Amino acid sequence: MRSLLAGAPFIAGLGVELVTMGSDGVETVLAIEPRHSQQNGFVHAGVIGAMADHTAGGAAFAHMPPGAAVLTVEYKLNLLRPARGERLRCRAEPVKIGRTISVVDSRVYACTGDREELVATATVTLATVPLAE
Amino acid sequence: MRSLLAGAPFIAGLGVELVTMGSDGVETVLAIEPRHSQQNGFVHAGVIGAMADHTAGGAAFAHMPPGAAVLTVEYKLNLLRPARGERLRCRAEPVKIGRTISVVDSRVYACTGDREELVATATVTLATVPLAE
Amino acid sequence: MRSLLAGAPFIAGLGVELVTMGSDGVETVLAIEPRHSQQNGFVHAGVIGAMADHTAGGAAFAHMPPGAAVLTVEYKLNLLRPARGERLRCRAEPVKIGRTISVVDSRVYACTGDREELVATATVTLATVPLAE
Amino acid sequence: MRSLLAGAPFIAGLGVELVTMGSDGVETVLAIEPRHSQQNGFVHAGVIGAMADHTAGGAAFAHMPPGAAVLTVEYKLNLLRPARGERLRCRAEPVKIGRTISVVDSRVYACTGDREELVATATVTLATVPLAE
Repeated sequence: MRSLLAGAPFIAGLGVELVTMGSDGVETVLAIEPRHSQQNGFVHAGVIGAMADHTAGGAAFAHMPPGAAVLTVEYKLNLLRPARGERLRCRAEPVKIGRTISVVDSRVYACTGDREELVATATVTLATVPLAE
Repeated sequence: MRSLLAGAPFIAGLGVELVTMGSDGVETVLAIEPRHSQQNGFVHAGVIGAMADHTAGGAAFAHMPPGAAVLTVEYKLNLLRPARGERLRCRAEPVKIGRTISVVDSRVYACTGDREELVATATVTLATVPLAE
Repeated sequence: MRSLLAGAPFIAGLGVELVTMGSDGVETVLAIEPRHSQQNGFVHAGVIGAMADHTAGGAAFAHMPPGAAVLTVEYKLNLLRPARGERLRCRAEPVKIGRTISVVDSRVYACTGDREELVATATVTLATVPLAE
Repeated sequence: MRSLLAGAPFIAGLGVELVTMGSDGVETVLAIEPRHSQQNGFVHAGVIGAMADHTAGGAAFAHMPPGAAVLTVEYKLNLLRPARGERLRCRAEPVKIGRTISVVDSRVYACTGDREELVATATVTLATVPLAE
């Protein structure tokens, strides 16, 4: 999983880091930088979506048998509030792990000090695929 | 609109460029680079989602009255095929422009030479908000 | 709220009944009948979607000020397993209640005796509108 | 396909009828009755969602090889305007037909005489499954 994050250049370049992972979910964090922002200074929805999708992928991948990986079929992201602060935290939890299709829910929080606020929720549908060599 | 793209550091940094804009839609392009990829070498879903969302924002913004801007309420992205090639092209067209809520459809194509393949479709719901100073 | 259910002929005709409501959520139940099924004998996705959407509407409406109602802007439904059994139970909980836009998550369970199984999850985006006379 | 509609009690009971079907899409129609309405007299979102989902299922099923059927994995419905009039018309067109996963777009129109208005769009993701005996 750690290598899953490091192995995805876009996610590594974005600055997403793994915090915890387990069968009940995966957590990632991102230190917010000016390059992540949209025109108003808030974090761009694309950053939040990438983090929600990739963390969900990790949460499903943790349940895959050897030789199997996951690929996102679709995701849906609701942006609840403008995201600003020191960092984003994403928590992804499996809703259903299936043989061919899995569904994971992600929640993204904007954090400053020890305060945090839910800024987005996502539902991600993933397909089981053979692990690429 | 050109300044909308240039004014969003995340989108400018990603390499998304405006091609055309009008009341019937907005088109953007992105030259694919290794930094855009996920672990298998395809373009990461997060890049595609960011491009689909931002281009949709432009397509809705083109219809806003003076003093108004748009903010994404939610988006839903279907990934149809692995995206690889020389560049991504995104075409966003308004489905409904409303006073408070607008809906825009985006389609993302992966292009190599003059061949292109539809790799993703998105539906983006946007709210009209006062233009930030 | 009870009148909200009774006042919607499609929902009343479907057989959806209110169980509980409060600021933390709304719960409804539906006794499964043969008329609710699709070609394989499972409950049709359209029944599940209608129940998830309407129950979410109730959960948002419970937070509206006097004179305001809610209208569904969009919903997204994941069908996790074929739904069969004696009844469906739907639990809708607010994720974010906003001034103009609210988001509610619904979960639908298929129940037989005291066993129940999660069969669908939905995210519903609603707009605040003036209450119709 | 005609039997697909007739064979689904919920859809037959709703009053959805097949108009045309082909490899480029499927069209259905529904005569609006008071029993289809929500509390304000408009057609309930659940009716529109059921029609959009089921018609999409037909559009994907038309491409399935012998012995295969389709099951909805998820759908997302945007409600663009209140739906009222004499009838609903739904047109579903395949976006991508895959071996295991297909994506279909549905558009629902409210019609009175020869005027019609787009009231909803949906994206439906379907999985290929063995045809039930």
